[in-house]
Amino acid sequence: MRRYIKRDFPTSNVRRLLEPGPIVLVSSAHKNETNIMTMGWHMMMEFSPALVACIISSANHSFELIRKSRQCVINIPTADLATTVVKIGNSSGRDIDKFGEFGLTPRPGTHVRAPLINECYASFECQLADASQVKKYDMFVFEVVKAHVATAPKLPKTIHYRGDGEFMISGAETRKYRKLFRPGML
Amino acid sequence: MRRYIKRDFPTSNVRRLLEPGPIVLVSSAHKNETNIMTMGWHMMMEFSPALVACIISSANHSFELIRKSRQCVINIPTADLATTVVKIGNSSGRDIDKFGEFGLTPRPGTHVRAPLINECYASFECQLADASQVKKYDMFVFEVVKAHVATAPKLPKTIHYRGDGEFMISGAETRKYRKLFRPGML
Repeated sequence: MRRYIKRDFPTSNVRRLLEPGPIVLVSSAHKNETNIMTMGWHMMMEFSPALVACIISSANHSFELIRKSRQCVINIPTADLATTVVKIGNSSGRDIDKFGEFGLTPRPGTHVRAPLINECYASFECQLADASQVKKYDMFVFEVVKAHVATAPKLPKTIHYRGDGEFMISGAETRKYRKLFRPGML
Repeated sequence: MRRYIKRDFPTSNVRRLLEPGPIVLVSSAHKNETNIMTMGWHMMMEFSPALVACIISSANHSFELIRKSRQCVINIPTADLATTVVKIGNSSGRDIDKFGEFGLTPRPGTHVRAPLINECYASFECQLADASQVKKYDMFVFEVVKAHVATAPKLPKTIHYRGDGEFMISGAETRKYRKLFRPGML
């Protein structure tokens, strides 16, 4: 498996990786336990502070680890990890240690205890910013407090879930329209 | 411009089009005015009722139309509309009639007064379900009450915003992992 070399990345730019809508791997830690879950329901809420909303069903083993530790890492996997992403989403941290089971390498973060996943293209260290909608919607609002992003390739082949077991892999085609944007609208 | 032939689509399946993370066009109507805005910050919240969260900045002209009418339509454009999508996002309904200016065809919905955009691949009629987070985050929670989706092609070439004026076009590569899913996890 690929291990990306990552560098610090401005948290105000994490939208560049999250807004296209990739499936992500959420890693967490609480007491002596770590876990990883696959998550598709997330959205940017604010550039700075960098706020991200996520739906984490209380049926997930990760739910309590994240709710109690008030932290997580949002990791962005690339196409080479697609099978692993599916397997992570279809197993439970109640039964297995997902890092060991799937050969993933935990790396320490700088701001949170939750481990970064070394094999992912990007890792965003998150602190829980608002739990007010957890009870009603299983919705967590996180602030990205530290971002690590691979130096290459420039455009990752991300994995996007279409439901029903089908994934779209992000296309190589990029269209640049900078000149059509008004100042402040990029 | 392409005009898709659309059919009724189960609202509980709208995640199949929204979860991959496409940029969308939000159409709205209030009193004698209609408008369209480009939006990238949205996420599924629930399958049934089909809830979708959206960030609609109060700086947008559409904000008040949607807040007051408590309705909108979320339309999914395809790659042929990319330039139009950028122009819609970089102009204001204060200054122009976007349907007329960009040659788009409004079509009546069945459940909301906001117009569907005929040239889009899919249109989801939405009613405001929860405005409690509008003041704090500009976040609207909509229920999709009626969905219209094109019969062909099966997989649309959607447009995904990477920030900084750059868009990813969804790839042709699809990976199917149905057999790796546990029952109820698709």
